[in-house]
Amino acid sequence: MTETQAAGRRSGGRAGRAAARAANVVERVPYLTRTMKPFEILSEEALATIEHTADTVLEEVGIEIRDYPEALPLFKDAGADVEGTRVKFPRGMCREIVSTNAPRTYVQHARNPQNNVVIGGDHTVFAPNYGSPFVHDLDAGRRYATLADFQNFVKLAYVSPYLHHSGGTVCEPVDVPVSKRHLDMVYSHLKYSDKPFMGSVTAGSRAADSVELARIGFGGDLQDRTVITSLINASSPLVWDGTMLAAAQCYAANNQACIITPFILAGAMAPATSAGVAVQTLAEALAGMTFTQLVRPGAPVIFGSFASSMSMQTGAPTFGTPEPALVLYTVAALARRLGVPFRSGGSLTASKLPDAQAAYESANTLQPTILGGVNFVLHSAGWLEGGLAIGYEKFVLDCDQLGMMHTFVRGLDTSENGIALDALRSNPPGNHFLGTAHTLANFETAFYRSDTADNSSFEQWSEDGALDAAQRANALWKRRLAEYEPPALDPAIDEQLVDFVTRRKAELPDEFA
Amino acid sequence: MTETQAAGRRSGGRAGRAAARAANVVERVPYLTRTMKPFEILSEEALATIEHTADTVLEEVGIEIRDYPEALPLFKDAGADVEGTRVKFPRGMCREIVSTNAPRTYVQHARNPQNNVVIGGDHTVFAPNYGSPFVHDLDAGRRYATLADFQNFVKLAYVSPYLHHSGGTVCEPVDVPVSKRHLDMVYSHLKYSDKPFMGSVTAGSRAADSVELARIGFGGDLQDRTVITSLINASSPLVWDGTMLAAAQCYAANNQACIITPFILAGAMAPATSAGVAVQTLAEALAGMTFTQLVRPGAPVIFGSFASSMSMQTGAPTFGTPEPALVLYTVAALARRLGVPFRSGGSLTASKLPDAQAAYESANTLQPTILGGVNFVLHSAGWLEGGLAIGYEKFVLDCDQLGMMHTFVRGLDTSENGIALDALRSNPPGNHFLGTAHTLANFETAFYRSDTADNSSFEQWSEDGALDAAQRANALWKRRLAEYEPPALDPAIDEQLVDFVTRRKAELPDEFA
Repeated sequence: MTETQAAGRRSGGRAGRAAARAANVVERVPYLTRTMKPFEILSEEALATIEHTADTVLEEVGIEIRDYPEALPLFKDAGADVEGTRVKFPRGMCREIVSTNAPRTYVQHARNPQNNVVIGGDHTVFAPNYGSPFVHDLDAGRRYATLADFQNFVKLAYVSPYLHHSGGTVCEPVDVPVSKRHLDMVYSHLKYSDKPFMGSVTAGSRAADSVELARIGFGGDLQDRTVITSLINASSPLVWDGTMLAAAQCYAANNQACIITPFILAGAMAPATSAGVAVQTLAEALAGMTFTQLVRPGAPVIFGSFASSMSMQTGAPTFGTPEPALVLYTVAALARRLGVPFRSGGSLTASKLPDAQAAYESANTLQPTILGGVNFVLHSAGWLEGGLAIGYEKFVLDCDQLGMMHTFVRGLDTSENGIALDALRSNPPGNHFLGTAHTLANFETAFYRSDTADNSSFEQWSEDGALDAAQRANALWKRRLAEYEPPALDPAIDEQLVDFVTRRKAELPDEFA
Repeated sequence: MTETQAAGRRSGGRAGRAAARAANVVERVPYLTRTMKPFEILSEEALATIEHTADTVLEEVGIEIRDYPEALPLFKDAGADVEGTRVKFPRGMCREIVSTNAPRTYVQHARNPQNNVVIGGDHTVFAPNYGSPFVHDLDAGRRYATLADFQNFVKLAYVSPYLHHSGGTVCEPVDVPVSKRHLDMVYSHLKYSDKPFMGSVTAGSRAADSVELARIGFGGDLQDRTVITSLINASSPLVWDGTMLAAAQCYAANNQACIITPFILAGAMAPATSAGVAVQTLAEALAGMTFTQLVRPGAPVIFGSFASSMSMQTGAPTFGTPEPALVLYTVAALARRLGVPFRSGGSLTASKLPDAQAAYESANTLQPTILGGVNFVLHSAGWLEGGLAIGYEKFVLDCDQLGMMHTFVRGLDTSENGIALDALRSNPPGNHFLGTAHTLANFETAFYRSDTADNSSFEQWSEDGALDAAQRANALWKRRLAEYEPPALDPAIDEQLVDFVTRRKAELPDEFA
């Protein structure tokens, strides 16, 4: 166990949990530290071929820098060939800049230091869904998201022991003008949670507002600490646009972290073949990560990859299918070779409901996420409908799955107690182990406890109303919101935050698009 | 591609599939051949510790041979220490006998040689659910299974391109006396399918009937070929009983394959700790496999492992949780070290419905099954309610997941076409790839096509009736049964089979328990 883990580790077992509940303290489970090597699907040679090809693309085709002339001199001074808005990179240039400057791991500080997370290495951090304009629940169906929904999901993420991060735009509060939304969102993360969070990327000025709110929330001085990790998406293929670059520039300059993410629907924004998707992802990510290192060498940056396959019938993105898993394993290996933290995966699905499709697809994404060694997992909980909606029931069901991963990555305990030779020696063949000393000593902690699965008999389950998993989750999210209590926040700081939000809202025009 | 694969490989792409449909030939996809190394969670040292401990258990505690005195002289003559019905094995004895004699891979022949499967090595064979007394569908709910249900599932397995095996007791036809059931079941596999199948294990005489039916079905002479693979379960902890051993003896003597499977609910039939489960599984399996090799050296045998964790609330078995996955990865590695084919996993769940719980748990089992390198997968499709029920909708949904695994295990294509450099070179930044020559050339085969997922827009999905995955699957199994056409079966052979079944049924008493 590393020191950073020890800080967040929950205190001992059942007694500790009971004490935590009594003190109205939210139960905490530290971010994952994987004990097993990542699953590899490609040889060194195949990975080197992908890297070589990405460099060929960067050298021959280059990257288009759209609406952000400020970036061009940075690239040129670093040795790139700039023709108009097209930037071509000599072979190896981006890799050299990124691997020399970007940190292998970094700490994202939380308002509550117990919730600090280490991003990179053998660690995995779970953050909730991001960016959905709609919400879904079993009672009201699908509808536009509001600020109240946003705050509900911040609260649900706060009370889940299995989410380590509050996320960013967990849903779009469409009842608030686009021009002001970021203020309410960042304030809500600071007010209703004390876990780490993400900032706005829809304009450079909104990134600056995010940093300023964080500064106030952290007590007036960030001391150069990284307290925000934000999502910077490419405009694939091979384009970085000015809005995203402006936000990235603001964050990097302030030593805040960016997740540089090519966002690819294979066959549309990239070639239809998975290796082609990996090549393009690497090329785009290298260019974006290089930009952050030119803005501020050493600024924390995450190599992101979001890749979906395509439905032949409709052209729509599909999730939980084999091709995105293959891309994930491949790009995870590329990120390790580059020596930077990696973001991908989540609990993704195209389903409109928390049904079997949603669960198969989410599990088929989360398994590669864990086994591939992803470091930062956006969309860990709640995602529905290709990201267009966040679901309340889906959120609760996904959190339970995240909990299982905490147990899984610890691996098999082959200590004397784990091996259980004494129990096997003393228990005669044919006799059950239910009452043995070894079972009694281990029973409490031996098995992950799901809070959404029903494992009772058919008869008991029928008597309990014959509910499906989504119906059980419906009751759970309502109970969690009803029992929610906010974390401590210094009233003086809260007042400063509110003042800042009020002032900026007064300065900004109302814009809804 | 191996020669055995080539026999079953489907002919080229869309045209081939269309031709196959026109000829009323069932589409075939060969069993899986994995291109990536299995996922490993333990060090060599930890695995050696488990092996050493299993040998300690075999040496000091031994295995109880219940109600089968015939086995005792075999063990004694091979060097075991037999005290009454307890057999203790000198350290290394079982490993030596199994690794020296049991084949690393074997071919299970099918009535249609195109459906032969290779079991072991880098191959994975999918067989359906096994042993459920109940069936479930959305229309009628849960009810006792009948012979008609049994035949329906044989038909559904036959028409699925992703099941390579017809299985055995896909459900229990409880409308047929226990004493005669095996005849109807084996006959149904031969009549309604031409894929490989499993035989009866509920009595030595029923195993003999199974072999005799197979002999007739294969044209009167088995030529020493293995045409049956049957499931032999231990009575854990550390007991093998006479019924199973009698069946195993019959099959092994006839060069038919046995899956020697410790069937363990951790905490009840084994220690609560996962490493303890692995130790006990290895000890029990070694003893059982040794028995088959003493009956007939070289008889094909599979190392089986079925392990579930336990619900703290109810004591009921749970599935899709982290502990069974850890056991699976561990025992798969132990089987590889021993050099025998491995059976585990499937699409397991405790859910009573084809809901999100069922899908999460099934995917959480199937992923380790594939990544751990399981060779023979029982319960690949249909399993519900901890095995008490087989579901029609669940069957169809699971088959779709099996299809995805076929694509996944082929890995990432890093050929020139896969890498797509020419496409990346010729497509200007910002332009989509939809109409490019590379996309057009690859679109048809680029992505796995799910037949149960809905990836359309929310609006289209609403217009289509807002169905969940289970509701879509309901229509699919009905259509597949309606369109089913049986494989060819020589009428003379069919008559002999019916004659045999009729004669044996007349000889046997009606018994329902």
